[in-house]
Amino acid sequence: MPLVVQKYGGTSVGDLDRIANVAKKVAACKDQGNEVVVVVSAMAGETDRLIDLAKRIDATPNESELDVLLATGEQVTVALLAITLESMGYKAKSYLGWQIPLRTDSAFGAARVTDVGREAIMADLAEGRIVIVAGFQGVDETDRITTLGRGGSDTSAVAVAAGLKADRCEIFTDVDGVYTTDPNITSKARKIHKIAYEEMLEMASLGAKVLYIRAVEFAMRHQVPVVVRSSFNDNEGTLVTEEHPDMEKESVSAVTCNTKEAKITLSGVADRPGIASQIFSMLSDANVVVDMIIQNSSADGKTDISFTVPEASLEKSLAICEDIKNKLGAEAVTGSNDIAKVSIIGLGMRSHTGVAAKMFTTLAEEGINIEMISTSEIKISCVIRKKYAELAVRALHDAFELDKVRR
Amino acid sequence: MPLVVQKYGGTSVGDLDRIANVAKKVAACKDQGNEVVVVVSAMAGETDRLIDLAKRIDATPNESELDVLLATGEQVTVALLAITLESMGYKAKSYLGWQIPLRTDSAFGAARVTDVGREAIMADLAEGRIVIVAGFQGVDETDRITTLGRGGSDTSAVAVAAGLKADRCEIFTDVDGVYTTDPNITSKARKIHKIAYEEMLEMASLGAKVLYIRAVEFAMRHQVPVVVRSSFNDNEGTLVTEEHPDMEKESVSAVTCNTKEAKITLSGVADRPGIASQIFSMLSDANVVVDMIIQNSSADGKTDISFTVPEASLEKSLAICEDIKNKLGAEAVTGSNDIAKVSIIGLGMRSHTGVAAKMFTTLAEEGINIEMISTSEIKISCVIRKKYAELAVRALHDAFELDKVRR
Repeated sequence: MPLVVQKYGGTSVGDLDRIANVAKKVAACKDQGNEVVVVVSAMAGETDRLIDLAKRIDATPNESELDVLLATGEQVTVALLAITLESMGYKAKSYLGWQIPLRTDSAFGAARVTDVGREAIMADLAEGRIVIVAGFQGVDETDRITTLGRGGSDTSAVAVAAGLKADRCEIFTDVDGVYTTDPNITSKARKIHKIAYEEMLEMASLGAKVLYIRAVEFAMRHQVPVVVRSSFNDNEGTLVTEEHPDMEKESVSAVTCNTKEAKITLSGVADRPGIASQIFSMLSDANVVVDMIIQNSSADGKTDISFTVPEASLEKSLAICEDIKNKLGAEAVTGSNDIAKVSIIGLGMRSHTGVAAKMFTTLAEEGINIEMISTSEIKISCVIRKKYAELAVRALHDAFELDKVRR
Repeated sequence: MPLVVQKYGGTSVGDLDRIANVAKKVAACKDQGNEVVVVVSAMAGETDRLIDLAKRIDATPNESELDVLLATGEQVTVALLAITLESMGYKAKSYLGWQIPLRTDSAFGAARVTDVGREAIMADLAEGRIVIVAGFQGVDETDRITTLGRGGSDTSAVAVAAGLKADRCEIFTDVDGVYTTDPNITSKARKIHKIAYEEMLEMASLGAKVLYIRAVEFAMRHQVPVVVRSSFNDNEGTLVTEEHPDMEKESVSAVTCNTKEAKITLSGVADRPGIASQIFSMLSDANVVVDMIIQNSSADGKTDISFTVPEASLEKSLAICEDIKNKLGAEAVTGSNDIAKVSIIGLGMRSHTGVAAKMFTTLAEEGINIEMISTSEIKISCVIRKKYAELAVRALHDAFELDKVRR
């Protein structure tokens, strides 16, 4: 009997009617002859409500106890879904993180899954039960409750699917699947039927919110086939899976755009070993997540270093850079959030030449200046002025003909 | 170092300000040189809100999953209290039922405590931590979450105090302690400084809500000294403890009154063996909790059986009795909720004669007719018309001079 793990997010279980709707979908999957494990998030808004409660006590609440608090959100949902399925005549049983157990490290608030128990759930499935797992939560080695951070329920679902060696993991969300680009930017955006883990990983790290990066990493590492689909219709969705020969035909699979970053330039820095290390250690110590880093080649023993940070970290980062400027005797610090990062992603880039040139040409033809460039094996990102973001996405989507159905 | 278990109910932790107030009291106890374990209930109204949510799905929700749902109430409170204490600079750590573990049988919704783990909490206390325990919840042998039923947090507190061999268990509530009778009925009601477990047990079973019956049973069985006191002031409270010679001086310690029962009479029943068994088995099967049972002696081979049930069960019980009447060929069934049960309780009754006579005389002098009488070794209960309830309580309180301070 195929074993299917389904995951429903907070919007899908936002009230009792929606929970009833999820129960129907779960029951249908069971009736089709599958063994079913369901992973659910907290009801929409609940996690934020609990965080707010804790922060009214203490702006930086004890992290371990905050996780105890937050874990109640998913506990409510699993119980309500189990009660609903039982009232429909199905045998259902809820599992909290510690009952599986879903073991993690002790990084409260952003724990990483280390192991997933198999025996208990498999025994319940064998007895015909639908198993309902609380997403987002686990336990560390000392049996303290942990949570997995933003998108944690996706990670829970993939981790449980890997642990149980499920045949597939279905992530139900409020969109139909993974698109070639944001459909709000261009109506030509097309749903991708099949995408490789590596591409999905790049898209997630570039800000596509459809699937969280840790979940994709976990799926890739454990070769879990993941389907992203809508909880509001029966459309097919997008399969995230291993790279496959027929995926290589085209060079570019998707265009993404992130307008939530800011750019900082530290100019006239002495060009000697260890300078970059000093700068980025200080930012790291302040928990600033630096994304792109560009250092220009230097002629006069001085260099300019530019990098991007989340928009929300701009003020903090500028203050740190002022400090660095004074310490290192640099010339100036400038910062701006008037930027957008536009990226193209595709496995095919590895074998196709001229992809980068085509991207730069396309942007140039639209009169868009490129301020920073960063590349990986299967991705090229360009930082441009924010006002050109949508134009750039549409132009690149057209240039690489992403509206054409393939595969 | 003395080990104190404190328990705070739902009203005492009803919002963040009240939780801050509890944290101050807990911290003061710790600062006085005690090891402190705090047991807390869900925030006032939360358990009812969760029950309502479940019942909107199913009038009789799956009992195991309902317990998973309800257990979140206390989980929220322990986390918030721990966060508060940590923000005040104390080391605090929350414990859920499964983390202690507090083992129970599998009677979901009304589980009985079977064992309380000691090692983990003692280790935390030894390291100077304040331990915060989620009341009302435990785990059965298969690691399913259970809840202990109404007043369950009192039971949790006493069970934890017993398990840890605490020096005392303080139950903080919205009243000052245990009174000789309800102060709303007579201003002469006096706070009792010390009361025996047996007396408290009778009072709890007679409807005094200050301490729940299972908690008292547990305290008596394990000889845990319990102090009932107010969470809103520093008054001394009432010590519930072992029987002690100086308690025996007076015959009666308290008067209670319960107006939430109803009386049913099944008349003209054949007086033969097994009839009572049939009647009360059927009521028991329907989950009706029968209190007093009176069977008149019979002359003509027929008898009348009267008994009391909770007012809320009157309709259901009457329907069952109609059924019984037809099956057994009884003559009539009558029911009334126009009754009150007035009781006097006191260890001294065992050695003092004439207590019952004095009670009956007192009621007679007020012109109050007694409809049913039931006695135990340390208690006499009389059922009277409801309108006389307060008059009877005041008269008995005066007659036994309960307003005079002793002990």
